[in-house]
Amino acid sequence: MHTLQSYLCGSWQSGQGDPQPLENAVNGETVAQVTSRGLDLAAAVRHAREVGGPALRAMTFEERGKALKSLSAAIHEIREELIDLAAQNGGCTRGDAKFDIDGATGTLAAYAHYAKGLGDKPYLLDGEGSQLGRTARFWGQHVRVPRRGVAVHINAFNFPAWGMMEKAACSLLAGVPVIEKPATSTALVAWRIAQVVVESGVLPEGAFQFLCGSAGDLLDHLGAQDCVAFTGSARTGEIIRGNANLVKHNVRVNIEADSINAAVLAPDVDESSETYGLFLTNVSTDMTQKSGQKCTAVRRIFVPREQADQVAQDLAAELGRISVGDPTERENRMGPVAHSGQLEDVRSGMAQLSEVAKAVTGGLDPHPKGGCFVTPTLFQAQDGSAQVLHDLEVFGPVATLIPYDGSAQEAAALVCRGGGGLVTSVYSNDGDWTAEYVLEVSPWHGRVWIGSDRMAEQALPPGMVLPGLIHGGPGRAGGGEELGAERGLEFYMQRVALQGFKGFLQTHFG
Amino acid sequence: MHTLQSYLCGSWQSGQGDPQPLENAVNGETVAQVTSRGLDLAAAVRHAREVGGPALRAMTFEERGKALKSLSAAIHEIREELIDLAAQNGGCTRGDAKFDIDGATGTLAAYAHYAKGLGDKPYLLDGEGSQLGRTARFWGQHVRVPRRGVAVHINAFNFPAWGMMEKAACSLLAGVPVIEKPATSTALVAWRIAQVVVESGVLPEGAFQFLCGSAGDLLDHLGAQDCVAFTGSARTGEIIRGNANLVKHNVRVNIEADSINAAVLAPDVDESSETYGLFLTNVSTDMTQKSGQKCTAVRRIFVPREQADQVAQDLAAELGRISVGDPTERENRMGPVAHSGQLEDVRSGMAQLSEVAKAVTGGLDPHPKGGCFVTPTLFQAQDGSAQVLHDLEVFGPVATLIPYDGSAQEAAALVCRGGGGLVTSVYSNDGDWTAEYVLEVSPWHGRVWIGSDRMAEQALPPGMVLPGLIHGGPGRAGGGEELGAERGLEFYMQRVALQGFKGFLQTHFG
Repeated sequence: MHTLQSYLCGSWQSGQGDPQPLENAVNGETVAQVTSRGLDLAAAVRHAREVGGPALRAMTFEERGKALKSLSAAIHEIREELIDLAAQNGGCTRGDAKFDIDGATGTLAAYAHYAKGLGDKPYLLDGEGSQLGRTARFWGQHVRVPRRGVAVHINAFNFPAWGMMEKAACSLLAGVPVIEKPATSTALVAWRIAQVVVESGVLPEGAFQFLCGSAGDLLDHLGAQDCVAFTGSARTGEIIRGNANLVKHNVRVNIEADSINAAVLAPDVDESSETYGLFLTNVSTDMTQKSGQKCTAVRRIFVPREQADQVAQDLAAELGRISVGDPTERENRMGPVAHSGQLEDVRSGMAQLSEVAKAVTGGLDPHPKGGCFVTPTLFQAQDGSAQVLHDLEVFGPVATLIPYDGSAQEAAALVCRGGGGLVTSVYSNDGDWTAEYVLEVSPWHGRVWIGSDRMAEQALPPGMVLPGLIHGGPGRAGGGEELGAERGLEFYMQRVALQGFKGFLQTHFG
Repeated sequence: MHTLQSYLCGSWQSGQGDPQPLENAVNGETVAQVTSRGLDLAAAVRHAREVGGPALRAMTFEERGKALKSLSAAIHEIREELIDLAAQNGGCTRGDAKFDIDGATGTLAAYAHYAKGLGDKPYLLDGEGSQLGRTARFWGQHVRVPRRGVAVHINAFNFPAWGMMEKAACSLLAGVPVIEKPATSTALVAWRIAQVVVESGVLPEGAFQFLCGSAGDLLDHLGAQDCVAFTGSARTGEIIRGNANLVKHNVRVNIEADSINAAVLAPDVDESSETYGLFLTNVSTDMTQKSGQKCTAVRRIFVPREQADQVAQDLAAELGRISVGDPTERENRMGPVAHSGQLEDVRSGMAQLSEVAKAVTGGLDPHPKGGCFVTPTLFQAQDGSAQVLHDLEVFGPVATLIPYDGSAQEAAALVCRGGGGLVTSVYSNDGDWTAEYVLEVSPWHGRVWIGSDRMAEQALPPGMVLPGLIHGGPGRAGGGEELGAERGLEFYMQRVALQGFKGFLQTHFG
């Protein structure tokens, strides 16, 4: 059995006391254990600030980009091993594991690519300069510079590879050292990747530290130049954002919480169209990929009232074709949920939904294979009036079909009752209907995905987070923002307005 | 005596119970009174969201810009009346009052100007579009849309006009209705401006509300689409940022707290140069304008050790030329601090500084004119070792001269001990020295002002916040960001990534 260590202050370290077990979701066996108790986290913060930060900042953006490229390659080399580990700890099928691991290497490679345009100066220009005085002699120029602290990344259990490296890619490229803390329950993949990152020697010492286990008092050591990016539940996000030390020192905090994402079928889409097929495929994929444990997964499916029953049948048929079972067997398209705690949460959530909606397929009967398996479940509600439909996230292969009157206004109003989402998808070939809908839902979302016949062949699904587009959302979704190509660096940098003689600014900050 | 009312839900309203008096800082007389107790603030929030927001969003950016221009003109029309009110309540000289009032009308006019480039669509483009699939057919485009909530602005006592209207300008142009809450102690000017804004009829009903007195339970009614921008003390900022309701709903918060701003004289500047004269003038102005009650005022003056005594003498002479007295008498260049509570704070702060530095001019003896008058006071420290020099903001006409070794590194290290600032100024004609200094201090500041011979004739002083440059700073300064031309709108808008067929996006969101 693996005992997972932390990499802090330049060495691999073990905590003390009783370790926490990591579970195999197929059979409940313990596959690894971890504890971080007693580790000197204040020293880790100092190490990042005093050793990692200066070394990273001594590299240019291009050099840091090349390092990301090398990390991408090093992780890709152990892809098969990581796929095995993701099945053992997390219950991932091969497809689920690849989605996570290739997401990590792909995002690193994308940021290596973005780095090429960023030049070799120790700052980035922010917009054009502007004249401040009577002539151009007195000039203003905004620039962004790396902050002088550490980025603490607290990652979610569902994407141990991608979640860690998408945050690390932005921070490291910006020139800010990281302390990565994976979710303990699925830390095995993250730990193996951390080993590869350290062994590769690609990053200067102190730029990458890895805290495996509880975060302990880590947040209490942070100050004005540090930041925290968290992905996980709204409740934990609330605790982090309200942390007295972070509030006191105006530490930057980015929260990416889950949301009650919606897919909307517009009334113009008939069942023979390519758009309708895309809708069925995407919704079914979103519900079952990673066993529905994606922060971007569809939880609510809005369908015009007259089509509701037909769509429910078609979706149920689609879900019925998905074989559920041991993720190491290649014929299975869906594995268990990640661990027994998740199974309990999912079953409790399904019980709540079943009070306001009926199961079209799946339901509360335990899955015949035992373990943490859940049957893909589609609920159907009479209407969207019950607030639980818009509030309760069941983090598993579960969604609810909700009829609406076919108008863009009602669809948008129902979707926005989710209180803020990471992504919403809409399927329509009616441009005016779609534009009206998109404008209404945009203030409540970080991303709006628009499906139509014209893009169906090329479309990447809405549940996939792309490095070039922002990821995050207002309100319930945490109020944060990550990725979005160069936008992802903003969180790690300080924007500063320089004002002075134009010749000086153009020579030294141009 | 004026009894100041609030403008909420379309009517002027009075609170109940014992009013709070507003003071004349020259003689302690009560000039007005106010209470907000019992006002229905939940209704005000709803009014903004349901009446003001839709009406504002029905206007284009250009139309909203024209409204700002009209407000600027309407406020300018009562400039002389406002100057009188600012002397009665706040103790402002004519120059101080103009700085505040012309700042308000100037910022409104500047945002009216920025509006012209923003077009007539209900969104702003954010960057270029990008290809997401194998061909350009599957496309991504980031846009910004106005959030659907209300912007609550809690303003500071020192700039009742500018502070209110610089926040309102950004929010209203973005399409978000405001509730403006002035600091109670100097609310007279803000109240008169609010009257003009309402009477002008320029804004649609619900776009501008005015809460005079305590904020009561206002923050408890805010949700995911709302935001709070606060200017004031670090301590109050901490309470607002930590407010349980704001944390729970991921309400956006922008804090602009005061900071221990520094001016740095580089070793190359000799006493005959234009740069030296600029340094003396600016430091003296910053210390005494608004009686030193500016969040951007200089509190620490770093001078190469060998020049320290000479500079102390020259600055003392400069400060000695400033006549202090009744602000309504035109020969006086400095009035009292704003009210008796401020006087107490200033005197207590001076007592603390006098433990680690000696007074070169001014000091703790009460001012002969009584009231809330304070003699401009320059302290001089032996060195920068005492942390109180970098932590304690004395919000009055008080600063400390601190010697350093002449290196850019030591200057930067001392300046950054302030823990984050709104602005720092540096005076030098040595480009390399300056560039090194600027790069070191930039992560800790929102703005860096660079003085030299080449720009001396045209330079606006560092204490002046310009609408085209960002205002805010990390850490101690609150971690916020305002203004900066179009950047100032970002806080009030949601950035959303749209992905779909390129033709659709270019037609409807291009």
